[in-house]
Amino acid sequence: MNCTNASKIYNLVGAEAVLTEADDLRKYLTGLSTTFGYVISDKNGTVFYTDSRYLEGAENALKGTEVAVRQFKAPLEDLLKSYKQIAIPIGRTLYPEYKKLKNSGFEIVDSLPAFTSAMSVKERYELSSIKHACKITDKAFNSLLGLIKEGMTENEVAAELEYLMRKSGASGTSFSTIVAFGENSSVPHHETGMRKLKFGDIILIDFGCKYEGYCSDCTRTFLFGDDKKHENFKKSYSRVLEAHMRAKENITTGMTGKEADATARNCLKIYGLDKYFTHSLGHGIGINVHEFPYISPKSEDKLSDGMVFSDEPGVYLAGEYGIRIEDTVMLEKGKTVSLTDSDKNLIII
Amino acid sequence: MNCTNASKIYNLVGAEAVLTEADDLRKYLTGLSTTFGYVISDKNGTVFYTDSRYLEGAENALKGTEVAVRQFKAPLEDLLKSYKQIAIPIGRTLYPEYKKLKNSGFEIVDSLPAFTSAMSVKERYELSSIKHACKITDKAFNSLLGLIKEGMTENEVAAELEYLMRKSGASGTSFSTIVAFGENSSVPHHETGMRKLKFGDIILIDFGCKYEGYCSDCTRTFLFGDDKKHENFKKSYSRVLEAHMRAKENITTGMTGKEADATARNCLKIYGLDKYFTHSLGHGIGINVHEFPYISPKSEDKLSDGMVFSDEPGVYLAGEYGIRIEDTVMLEKGKTVSLTDSDKNLIII
Repeated sequence: MNCTNASKIYNLVGAEAVLTEADDLRKYLTGLSTTFGYVISDKNGTVFYTDSRYLEGAENALKGTEVAVRQFKAPLEDLLKSYKQIAIPIGRTLYPEYKKLKNSGFEIVDSLPAFTSAMSVKERYELSSIKHACKITDKAFNSLLGLIKEGMTENEVAAELEYLMRKSGASGTSFSTIVAFGENSSVPHHETGMRKLKFGDIILIDFGCKYEGYCSDCTRTFLFGDDKKHENFKKSYSRVLEAHMRAKENITTGMTGKEADATARNCLKIYGLDKYFTHSLGHGIGINVHEFPYISPKSEDKLSDGMVFSDEPGVYLAGEYGIRIEDTVMLEKGKTVSLTDSDKNLIII
Repeated sequence: MNCTNASKIYNLVGAEAVLTEADDLRKYLTGLSTTFGYVISDKNGTVFYTDSRYLEGAENALKGTEVAVRQFKAPLEDLLKSYKQIAIPIGRTLYPEYKKLKNSGFEIVDSLPAFTSAMSVKERYELSSIKHACKITDKAFNSLLGLIKEGMTENEVAAELEYLMRKSGASGTSFSTIVAFGENSSVPHHETGMRKLKFGDIILIDFGCKYEGYCSDCTRTFLFGDDKKHENFKKSYSRVLEAHMRAKENITTGMTGKEADATARNCLKIYGLDKYFTHSLGHGIGINVHEFPYISPKSEDKLSDGMVFSDEPGVYLAGEYGIRIEDTVMLEKGKTVSLTDSDKNLIII
C-alpha cells in the first residue's frame, strides 16, 4: 500500500482543504477498501474519519503512514468549520451534499481533475497489483478450459471461473462475470443465466478479478466443439483478432482516445464489419473497472505512459453470434504491453 | 420479473415525467440488471433507453410488458424537451446533472420518497427472489462447515463459500464476503485476507448472495475446535444470541427503527455489553444490501408488513474477539419471520 497519494492530491488541488468521500477515491487516498468514511487533507496533513466497523482495521493498516485515523462522529460540519475553502470532486458529488456545503458559505473547488489525472497514471505499486490481477485472470481462464462440459449452464461456468480466481488470491470479481453461450453471445453485455451448453456453441466470457483493490478485465470467445456451421463466425473472428492486434501495435503514448479507437475500428471497416462494432474500443482500468481514459470515437482523452486500459474490439450480429477479444494493456515507453495474455487464436475445446 | 413498478412509481410521484438513471432504481423499474440507461415515464407510458450493449437483451426480456425499449442516442435533453416538469431522485442525483436540468428550465420534483416507500415493502415476486437467495445462503453455510480445514486462509474460506452459492444459482455476492479468523473477528468489517486458520480460532463469516437481482445477508460466528480458552467468548455469545432472538420476538409492524434497535440493545445492556455493540441493529435488504428502513438508535423509519431487514447484534472487544449473529428477516402479519435460518447455537467444528 502506498500512502503518499493524499499529499499528492492535496498538492495538485491547491485548495485550503480537500474533502473526499467517494469509495474509490477514498481507497486511492487510504489504500483501504471501506464503505464509509471521509478523508480530509489540509496543510497539517491528512485524517481518515471512519466508523466503528472499520476503525480498528484502519488504525492497524495506516500506522506510521501520512494518514491519521479517527472515529467519525457526526456532524461533518464540525470537522470543516475552520476552513473557508473546500475541494470536493464536483462531478461525483450528490446535489444535496453540494448544496449543504455551498449554503454553509464554503468556497468550493473541484478536486476531480486532480484525482482523474493522478489515478490514471499508475504508480509502480498499482501496476504490481494490476499485473497480479491479470496473472490470476489468465491462469483461471487456462484452467477453466479443462472444466467446461456439455450441459453446464452459463451460471455454472461463471461459478467455476470465479472460484479459480478466488482460490488464486483474488478478493472478488471486478464486475459481474459475463458468460454467454451460442446466440446469447450477440448481446454484448448478456446477463449470465441458465442456458445450457451444447456441442458447437460459441462461448463468450468477459471476466476480471480484483487484487489488492485493483481490477483486471479480459474477454475470450471460443468454440465448444466444431459443428462445421461456423464459417462466417471463424472469418469474423480472425478479423476481430486482427483489429485487436492492430490496436496493440499502433496505440502509442500521446494519442487521443479517438485516435486509439480508430486503430481497430478502421481495420474492421476494411471488412465491412465496423457497423457491427457497436461499442468503444476500451476504457481505463484501475481501482475502477471503468475509468479515465476512454478509448472511444469521440474521446479527446490523452494517452500517456503508465496508463492501463482495455483493448476490446467486438462484432455482434443479433440472434447469430458475437465476438469480443479483450486484453488489459498498459502504455510503457510509448507502446502498449499486454497485461492479460492468454491465447487469442481461436480455441476449439 | 414484475413490470408494473414503472406505473406504480409514476402514479406515486404525480409529476409530468419521471426520469430515472440510478442502477438500482432502473433495475426496480425494468427488472433488468444494467450499468447504463434512462427510464422515462409519462402519461403515455414508460420507455427504457439503453445502449447497444443491452439493447437486444432488454428487447427480449421486456417484450409484452409496460416498458418499451429504445436505443439511447445522446443527448438526453432531446428526450425531455416536451416536458415542463421532471421528477428525479434528488438525494441520489449528482450535482452537475441536477444543475443541467435546473438550468434548462425544468421544474424539478423529487421521486426518491416514492421509490423508498415502494421498494421497502416487497411484492410477492420480490419476496420469492429474496427467500431463494436466503435459502442458497443457508445451504452454502451448512456445506461450508464440512470444508473448513486447519491452515486455510480467510480468502480460501471465502472462495469456497462463494463457489457454493454460485453453484446453487446465485448470480454473485451481495457484498464482499467477510471472513475473519481469531482476533480479526473484533474488527466488525474486517478485510478478508491471508490469515491462516489455527485450532481454537473464532471464525466470523458475514456473507450473502444475489438471486434475480435481490440480496440476502447473514452472519455466523463459531469455533474451529475448542481450546478451552474461550470462556468469556462463550458467555458473550449466548448474550448476543439472546439479543438477536429478543429482537425477533419483539420487533413488530408499526415500530420505529429506534424502537426496533432498542429490543436488542437493551438486552445487551443488562449484561453491560451494550458499549461493545458499536453499530446499528439492522438495515433494509432488497435490490440493495443496505436500504430503507434503518434499524438504528436514531432511526424514525416506520416498520411495516412486507419489509425485509437484518437482525444483527454484535459485540467487539478490540484485539480479543468479535461476535455477530445476523439473519435476514421480514415482517409478516405484524411479526418478524426469519428468512435465513441456519443453526445459531454455538457451533464448534
